Amino acid sequence: MNKVEMTETIILAKNELGVSWAQIADAAGLSEVFTTSACLGMNSLQPEPAEKLGAFLKLPVEAIGALQTFPHKSWEKTVPTDPLIYRLYEIVGVYGPTMKELIHEKFGDGIMSAIDFSMHIDKEENPAGDRVVVTMNGKFLPYKSW
Amino acid sequence: MNKVEMTETIILAKNELGVSWAQIADAAGLSEVFTTSACLGMNSLQPEPAEKLGAFLKLPVEAIGALQTFPHKSWEKTVPTDPLIYRLYEIVGVYGPTMKELIHEKFGDGIMSAIDFSMHIDKEENPAGDRVVVTMNGKFLPYKSW
Amino acid sequence: MNKVEMTETIILAKNELGVSWAQIADAAGLSEVFTTSACLGMNSLQPEPAEKLGAFLKLPVEAIGALQTFPHKSWEKTVPTDPLIYRLYEIVGVYGPTMKELIHEKFGDGIMSAIDFSMHIDKEENPAGDRVVVTMNGKFLPYKSW
Amino acid sequence: MNKVEMTETIILAKNELGVSWAQIADAAGLSEVFTTSACLGMNSLQPEPAEKLGAFLKLPVEAIGALQTFPHKSWEKTVPTDPLIYRLYEIVGVYGPTMKELIHEKFGDGIMSAIDFSMHIDKEENPAGDRVVVTMNGKFLPYKSW
Amino acid sequence: MNKVEMTETIILAKNELGVSWAQIADAAGLSEVFTTSACLGMNSLQPEPAEKLGAFLKLPVEAIGALQTFPHKSWEKTVPTDPLIYRLYEIVGVYGPTMKELIHEKFGDGIMSAIDFSMHIDKEENPAGDRVVVTMNGKFLPYKSW
Amino acid sequence: MNKVEMTETIILAKNELGVSWAQIADAAGLSEVFTTSACLGMNSLQPEPAEKLGAFLKLPVEAIGALQTFPHKSWEKTVPTDPLIYRLYEIVGVYGPTMKELIHEKFGDGIMSAIDFSMHIDKEENPAGDRVVVTMNGKFLPYKSW
Amino acid sequence: MNKVEMTETIILAKNELGVSWAQIADAAGLSEVFTTSACLGMNSLQPEPAEKLGAFLKLPVEAIGALQTFPHKSWEKTVPTDPLIYRLYEIVGVYGPTMKELIHEKFGDGIMSAIDFSMHIDKEENPAGDRVVVTMNGKFLPYKSW
Amino acid sequence: MNKVEMTETIILAKNELGVSWAQIADAAGLSEVFTTSACLGMNSLQPEPAEKLGAFLKLPVEAIGALQTFPHKSWEKTVPTDPLIYRLYEIVGVYGPTMKELIHEKFGDGIMSAIDFSMHIDKEENPAGDRVVVTMNGKFLPYKSW
Amino acid sequence: MNKVEMTETIILAKNELGVSWAQIADAAGLSEVFTTSACLGMNSLQPEPAEKLGAFLKLPVEAIGALQTFPHKSWEKTVPTDPLIYRLYEIVGVYGPTMKELIHEKFGDGIMSAIDFSMHIDKEENPAGDRVVVTMNGKFLPYKSW
Amino acid sequence: MNKVEMTETIILAKNELGVSWAQIADAAGLSEVFTTSACLGMNSLQPEPAEKLGAFLKLPVEAIGALQTFPHKSWEKTVPTDPLIYRLYEIVGVYGPTMKELIHEKFGDGIMSAIDFSMHIDKEENPAGDRVVVTMNGKFLPYKSW
Repeated sequence: MNKVEMTETIILAKNELGVSWAQIADAAGLSEVFTTSACLGMNSLQPEPAEKLGAFLKLPVEAIGALQTFPHKSWEKTVPTDPLIYRLYEIVGVYGPTMKELIHEKFGDGIMSAIDFSMHIDKEENPAGDRVVVTMNGKFLPYKSW
Repeated sequence: MNKVEMTETIILAKNELGVSWAQIADAAGLSEVFTTSACLGMNSLQPEPAEKLGAFLKLPVEAIGALQTFPHKSWEKTVPTDPLIYRLYEIVGVYGPTMKELIHEKFGDGIMSAIDFSMHIDKEENPAGDRVVVTMNGKFLPYKSW
Repeated sequence: MNKVEMTETIILAKNELGVSWAQIADAAGLSEVFTTSACLGMNSLQPEPAEKLGAFLKLPVEAIGALQTFPHKSWEKTVPTDPLIYRLYEIVGVYGPTMKELIHEKFGDGIMSAIDFSMHIDKEENPAGDRVVVTMNGKFLPYKSW
Repeated sequence: MNKVEMTETIILAKNELGVSWAQIADAAGLSEVFTTSACLGMNSLQPEPAEKLGAFLKLPVEAIGALQTFPHKSWEKTVPTDPLIYRLYEIVGVYGPTMKELIHEKFGDGIMSAIDFSMHIDKEENPAGDRVVVTMNGKFLPYKSW
Repeated sequence: MNKVEMTETIILAKNELGVSWAQIADAAGLSEVFTTSACLGMNSLQPEPAEKLGAFLKLPVEAIGALQTFPHKSWEKTVPTDPLIYRLYEIVGVYGPTMKELIHEKFGDGIMSAIDFSMHIDKEENPAGDRVVVTMNGKFLPYKSW
Repeated sequence: MNKVEMTETIILAKNELGVSWAQIADAAGLSEVFTTSACLGMNSLQPEPAEKLGAFLKLPVEAIGALQTFPHKSWEKTVPTDPLIYRLYEIVGVYGPTMKELIHEKFGDGIMSAIDFSMHIDKEENPAGDRVVVTMNGKFLPYKSW
Repeated sequence: MNKVEMTETIILAKNELGVSWAQIADAAGLSEVFTTSACLGMNSLQPEPAEKLGAFLKLPVEAIGALQTFPHKSWEKTVPTDPLIYRLYEIVGVYGPTMKELIHEKFGDGIMSAIDFSMHIDKEENPAGDRVVVTMNGKFLPYKSW
Repeated sequence: MNKVEMTETIILAKNELGVSWAQIADAAGLSEVFTTSACLGMNSLQPEPAEKLGAFLKLPVEAIGALQTFPHKSWEKTVPTDPLIYRLYEIVGVYGPTMKELIHEKFGDGIMSAIDFSMHIDKEENPAGDRVVVTMNGKFLPYKSW
Repeated sequence: MNKVEMTETIILAKNELGVSWAQIADAAGLSEVFTTSACLGMNSLQPEPAEKLGAFLKLPVEAIGALQTFPHKSWEKTVPTDPLIYRLYEIVGVYGPTMKELIHEKFGDGIMSAIDFSMHIDKEENPAGDRVVVTMNGKFLPYKSW
Repeated sequence: MNKVEMTETIILAKNELGVSWAQIADAAGLSEVFTTSACLGMNSLQPEPAEKLGAFLKLPVEAIGALQTFPHKSWEKTVPTDPLIYRLYEIVGVYGPTMKELIHEKFGDGIMSAIDFSMHIDKEENPAGDRVVVTMNGKFLPYKSW
């Protein structure tokens, strides 16, 4: 079973059971963002959380195996078209140079890792309209000379 | 004075005075991220913070005026090449569908605004290597039917 | 049932019943533009209008469900080729900077929302050739500093 | 004087006199949108409105001549990056097929002209946030067989 | 039956009957170019010529219906690769600015319509090698101010 | 003097003398289209017509020389943006396969040359709106086996 | 049978019979390069060599017919990735301007035809490593004024 | 002196002296193609031929030095637009797979080197129109396993 | 059996037998990198190692044949998206000019062959985190004049 | 002084003194590859090696400062055209999936860092032609769940 079929199987099971990503993540013992990204085929799970997640969603064994295989991370559109995802791309375009400037000032020459990295997405209730709060936490990797 | 010349003038003044973006932001009474993005030409300032920032950096009056003109937000590379900025693009590619999935589950159909939006960049000290913490906060805009 | 199959099902039903988009929109209690865009898979419906629309077109229950799922908005061609759609793209190219200039003058720094947004398409009869009237109405979202 | 220099000359004069696009359009006897687009170099003016506009802004005679030369309409970015203009591009992507569907139903096979075309931009005051109203009016051009 | 299947059906029928495009066009009472483009799915026919064409080629009723549906005009390659079609693209590249210059001089600011448009392709016999003669006839659409 | 400077020199001289492309072409003893394309730098002239054209426009000797050098034919935009030129590109997209089909039927396998080629642009007066008539005439080049 | 199926049929027959392209070309009475390109679907054969080739390879009659239909020449990758084909692309990039310079000097303004054209590929044995010899022979087509 | 200035200097000297590429190549003791490509900045010369060529064209010493520096081979257009160079690109597209097929059959798995490579361009006189003969000779480089 | 089916067959057999690429390479008598690349369809094997590899993995005879056919090397994404492969692309972008500079200084004008080439990938254990060691070894191919 | 001017200054000084990159690297106390990349503007130096390098090459103080500023890593061509750099790109295309497969097998899910990374380029003398040896050494960064 490849990652695409795995994702379809999981979404189907999720809809049938009527559970949320938060519940699935709890069952796996991981965060919502990481669990969802693994179910969408962009990350792999260790055997234990894969088994737990599979038991919770009553997945076939092939899907549990597919959750553990290494993903080939691929996205089709260089510039995303979905408005929700495009806004994130726009933030990178508008604020990317600002982030570079500030990270260099605070940390020196280097980058924020996208591998040793975690992210959370929260809801901030607000009478003027609820707000999405995205928190990214990535290790600073300094350039070293040799 | 256009935005490009304004940025060069500001960077020169900043280097000469040996001040940080945090100090410039304090002088303007705004956050680091927003102040830096305005100095890099990607946002405009209201008259008061523009005057304060200009006084702090001893900018010529044309630069203070340029800080208040509406920017044309533009980035040259569809796929950024600088490693620090590329990692952000990669995060959008890898986690974009996950963010879409979770925001829809938590908020319903809609997007996180990139306009009614703020961002902060912090340093988290860590013996295994310091970490960059990026916090984004954007208003949820629901799709409405008509 | 995915959105593509849903659209095919709806178009088939529409042709069989010989009804117009205006009639379908009336059944759903919504505007023509929004209803059509939801039927083409670019927007989602609330349960009530989805049920009404489904009843009117005698859609299977899976199609009624598909009308309510969150769409992934995607278009294949960066520059559209169909002459009708290309003309709209050309208008954005030719008049985009003009619209930016005038909206900034009338409203200040900010954008017209494409989410808190509605559109209508009307026919203006004219002896020299009928005319298409497109009216867009989007909330102004001001950039705020933080 | 080419169109780029003409635009710079006009913007300078506009800022010096402190007049709005609406006032300039009144002086020329034309609409705001068309006048602004001609001043930005995307349309040409007939001799009379060019003279009136030039007199109002005290333009040099070369600028008045440049307003009357045929423009070469060109835009640099296939996908616009400025958020205000991108939202318009997004509307074409999301609602283009809907507009095609409805125009064909109302008018038959053909297109809305982008040449025999006019546009207006208005401000609709609203306590929940002002709204931008864009009205486009283009001649329907039917495909004819031969 | 969609346009692609319709084209295959027509080509098959054409080959079986051993008729030329000129004969098919005669049957439909239309020109060769327009008839061929409708059979290739790029234009739609009115009911009467569709019926006549269908009777001549003994097409199934679905194909006759498909000839009347509105086409979505689409081409796959931004720069065509087939040598015959590329030469036409090259002519636009090499002579486009010349055509713009001459049309503006002869007609004023405006364009040649590609909608209110007809084309013929003829063979000119020539002992030094036969020649292809392409005649395009499009309505001049003037830009008007408003 | 390169081709770009040559074109600027010629346009200046043309405007000063107030002559049309037709008059310049007459002076050179060539057609309007070819003469204009040579003046825009896309074709080269033989010495005699270059001298005649130069004498008529009172060009400097360097410009007369530049008219005779071999051009490097280049266009900046893969998909043209100017509406007049885009319409020609659209015609190639929409009618290219039709032209291929008809030329193959009438001539066999081969192409219409864009080198052994001529073009004329004429105005057809019409009470419903004047029409642009473009006539292309290119040698048929058959594919031969070897 | 379309050209893709034809090519698969021919390659299968070639492998089964264990014959070389040179033998197939001999059977058809044509050169290796042209015969191979026709079998790969990029050129069409006249009836006689198609019959001979088909008899030699024991092809079904549909494949023999497919060899005679006009090809739509198409390549998927604008910049080829296969190293053998990329090297040819690189030669065009590196030596293209040199070839233009020398052909213009030797022949005047014009091009080398890619239609009235032949090519041969030979092996030159060499103790330091065998060498590939490619010979192209194309008619010079002069630009003519009109 | 960089390569671009070097080329300009050489072309100027060549035109002033009225010499051909063949004469320049003779002076350098090299072939026409290689010499021209070095003068156009795409290859470097050894000191001896650089000195000879420089003496023949009376080049300044900086130009002679520039002939010996390593070039950065770069071409601006992924798909060339000049018709002469495009035809070469088209040949790669149409005949590339044929060349791959035949080289593999004659030599085994490997490529024709574009580095250990030479090319000649000759004129073949022909009453039906002169012909351009291009001969490429590149070392076959076999893939080896390890 | 084509290369894609061959790769699937091999991966399946590898997973069933639970063997590593190192073991497969040993069975074939070749290096890990070359063997893996041949199994992924990017290189071809000689008959002997193909037979040995096939025997070890118990492959069907068609897969053993497919291992020996010449590959068409193709990659889908001009800029790779998978983070592991993108990092390699980034290294080429950041260090490519450095490598050019140093190879020219050490070897003269020429390139490192990607054909007469081998690569090894090793693991260097390190308490601060294991390290990947990639060693490439390619023949220097000097540019020669002719 | 920006990075581009710094590079020009350094290359000039290097040529005047007639020193190699190896000698410059020795003076800076760093490796050849890192030193060269910093001089080409793709990395930054710490103050001490910058001072030593500057003293050795007798650079102006602005150049020594520029060596220490954070670079914006940028490359112009998505697919490089210079043959030496293209071969590296080709290696990523051909062997990228192989490297991914082997690194995952040896290390688990993760990537080779391009930041905590070093590279060396050596010459291996060989009677059949010298060979370029490139050694890359990058930290393995495992994906971790959260």
